[in-house]
Amino acid sequence: MKTLNIGLCGSGNVGLSFIDVIHSNREKILKKYGIELNISVIGVRKGKIENKDFAGEIEKDILKVPLRDDVDVVVELIGGTDVSFELAMNALKNNKHFVTANKALMATKGKALYLEASKRNLHIGLEASVAGGIPIIRTLRDGLISNDVNWFAGILNGTSNFIFSKMKSEKKSFSDSLKLAQELGFAESDPSFDINGTDAAQKTSILSLISFAADISASDVYFEGIEHIDSQDMEYGEQLGFILKPISIGRNSSSGISMGSFPAFIKKEEILASINNESNAVEINTKNLNSTAFSGPGAGGYPTACSVLNDILDIGQGKIFDYSKLLNKQKVLDFNSYISSRYLKIMIKDEMGAVADVSSLIAKKKLSIDNLIQKDQDKDNELVPLVIVLGASQEKIVQELIEDLSKLAIVEGNVKHIRIFSP
Amino acid sequence: MKTLNIGLCGSGNVGLSFIDVIHSNREKILKKYGIELNISVIGVRKGKIENKDFAGEIEKDILKVPLRDDVDVVVELIGGTDVSFELAMNALKNNKHFVTANKALMATKGKALYLEASKRNLHIGLEASVAGGIPIIRTLRDGLISNDVNWFAGILNGTSNFIFSKMKSEKKSFSDSLKLAQELGFAESDPSFDINGTDAAQKTSILSLISFAADISASDVYFEGIEHIDSQDMEYGEQLGFILKPISIGRNSSSGISMGSFPAFIKKEEILASINNESNAVEINTKNLNSTAFSGPGAGGYPTACSVLNDILDIGQGKIFDYSKLLNKQKVLDFNSYISSRYLKIMIKDEMGAVADVSSLIAKKKLSIDNLIQKDQDKDNELVPLVIVLGASQEKIVQELIEDLSKLAIVEGNVKHIRIFSP
Repeated sequence: MKTLNIGLCGSGNVGLSFIDVIHSNREKILKKYGIELNISVIGVRKGKIENKDFAGEIEKDILKVPLRDDVDVVVELIGGTDVSFELAMNALKNNKHFVTANKALMATKGKALYLEASKRNLHIGLEASVAGGIPIIRTLRDGLISNDVNWFAGILNGTSNFIFSKMKSEKKSFSDSLKLAQELGFAESDPSFDINGTDAAQKTSILSLISFAADISASDVYFEGIEHIDSQDMEYGEQLGFILKPISIGRNSSSGISMGSFPAFIKKEEILASINNESNAVEINTKNLNSTAFSGPGAGGYPTACSVLNDILDIGQGKIFDYSKLLNKQKVLDFNSYISSRYLKIMIKDEMGAVADVSSLIAKKKLSIDNLIQKDQDKDNELVPLVIVLGASQEKIVQELIEDLSKLAIVEGNVKHIRIFSP
Repeated sequence: MKTLNIGLCGSGNVGLSFIDVIHSNREKILKKYGIELNISVIGVRKGKIENKDFAGEIEKDILKVPLRDDVDVVVELIGGTDVSFELAMNALKNNKHFVTANKALMATKGKALYLEASKRNLHIGLEASVAGGIPIIRTLRDGLISNDVNWFAGILNGTSNFIFSKMKSEKKSFSDSLKLAQELGFAESDPSFDINGTDAAQKTSILSLISFAADISASDVYFEGIEHIDSQDMEYGEQLGFILKPISIGRNSSSGISMGSFPAFIKKEEILASINNESNAVEINTKNLNSTAFSGPGAGGYPTACSVLNDILDIGQGKIFDYSKLLNKQKVLDFNSYISSRYLKIMIKDEMGAVADVSSLIAKKKLSIDNLIQKDQDKDNELVPLVIVLGASQEKIVQELIEDLSKLAIVEGNVKHIRIFSP
């Protein structure tokens, strides 16, 4: 038998679930793995722990948790990137393993931590940081070892997926859907990072680092928020056989790695189209396996706590993985070179020759039109929505086209642009 | 650096893919894991190896492969359950780890092997035996450690899924779909075990053993083949919002473990409904995670070879799992107690009171009718198909009902019965 002492930092929803999961699985784990898990101390900056299952010590100065002799593993569930980074470094420098659910920390400051851990043969467990309840990190790291990853595509932000799902299935507005997500606990009171794409981009960078064995951080990932989506686009997309999803992609080709997180249309028949509400999913395409897909809860106290526990059990079994070996310098492509089909919605004045003006600009850019539908005129004004599906086209050229289209006299307001993702 | 010598037995499609995968990943693995992989010998009963990447020895008596000093791991890719069992036992008794893609072996004779491996602290790698390219075994074993599995539901037989997919999408007959599957290499020349449910039931028993930590073997699993399915049932099901899939389920409740493999209707919106052609998928419902799902290729040379390689890399990294710890005696429920909704199709004579006769028999069994549709009369005869959807009902009572229905004078031929699976 082996005892593993845990120093838990943070006592929010995930922290409390973690205490509960440890408590209710202690015996089973002892029996199955011969590992006794023990939370020796909980670091809580303010307030106190109201948990009958925890009788250990409380430490108000969480930075002291890693200094204790009765801690083998530091579990960080406080969030943020400043104190959490200091905590992580303290842990590693004091020869403690480090387990976290903090994607922002790992996506922005992971490299320094991986290098420090490597020096001391310590494990960093970050399964909970991406797609909470889906064992995606270990799958990419272990299960697909021998498979070169060509690309992955995922729904990594549960809040955005929840909002899109409600807009679609219950015809709710964006803001009503967001409000409901907040009421149900699927969105923070300040949901900016979920809505503006930051969260998904951070997770994309973590998956890319592991998938492509590349030294990548959050700032390498292009991202776009979901605030500009309205139900009309969703409806028009559906009529074309598409479902709108918050998509994150990473692709490795001979010319470099391309990454992005943005709202995108995908074909109804695709697996990712069937992932609804707050669920997450990741589809992985590899050289030898073609596509495999994984779906499940993306967040929540218990799923996240279980991923943390699984990382701790890895440590207990001596499964130490050195992520620093993955930090290879690789070329990251400018998102301007990204190629996909596109949905454009242009509000045009109902005038003779308007469609011809638009089409000729598209032709000038040497882009192909897969579909062009002139919708019924809006009751409120004299504008007609023109929906255009462009064939495979490069980001840069499409952005130039959009600028040119906006300048046309017959075009009013912004041109709406939604990428169409096809695996 | 550490060298791991492999004794490969079998040189079919998977065996050749394995040689190729080892060859093309050798350097990457050495760099990433510090493990040098080497195929020292290939056991081939007949013929010879035509592979430029293999320069080692050939052994005609495969049972001698485990006896060699230059073998650390025996990889069994010969199939069957007799010679392969002897080979496995030889391997373990000579202190060699054992890796296999053989579900029949593990489902019928796994227990003896797990116990032998446990005595000697050896690893048995069987990732490739279920859902070839999906890392489902390691996910259940490691990734979901801390989650009690409530149930799993999967599409585990690629041949059956391929046949159903072609019957649906291309309106092909059962036998034409089977023929196509054989032409494309998705079905054996003798496809009996795929078609009659044996293959899926074996895989179900393996997943159940690991999911529920229960001493279960293939004979504990109820199974039914797909031969009796015709396109008419598929079409009627579709009109009701269902897709027909070859489903395998395992469920753990306080009263015991229930398992089965059979064709079943599932709602169009379910993830499993979107898994087409030869693909496999497994959905897992656990106490803390709700549902997670995994999909990917179920067989094929490269996916299977990669799973074998991943098992070998586990061994190289000292990740030895003792499956014998999972062999707990648990109650297995008789399939007669299985509860689900049901689709029944009854061919009745177009006579006054016929529907009333049928309905009153159902009422007598205290079963509820969720839907009853009388279809148009067959052109060829005077029979009318009557489609009935029964609400949640017990297997035993439904079987009695079917027997009673068959005896009615207005009923012709067999009553068609397809279970409706809802997670």
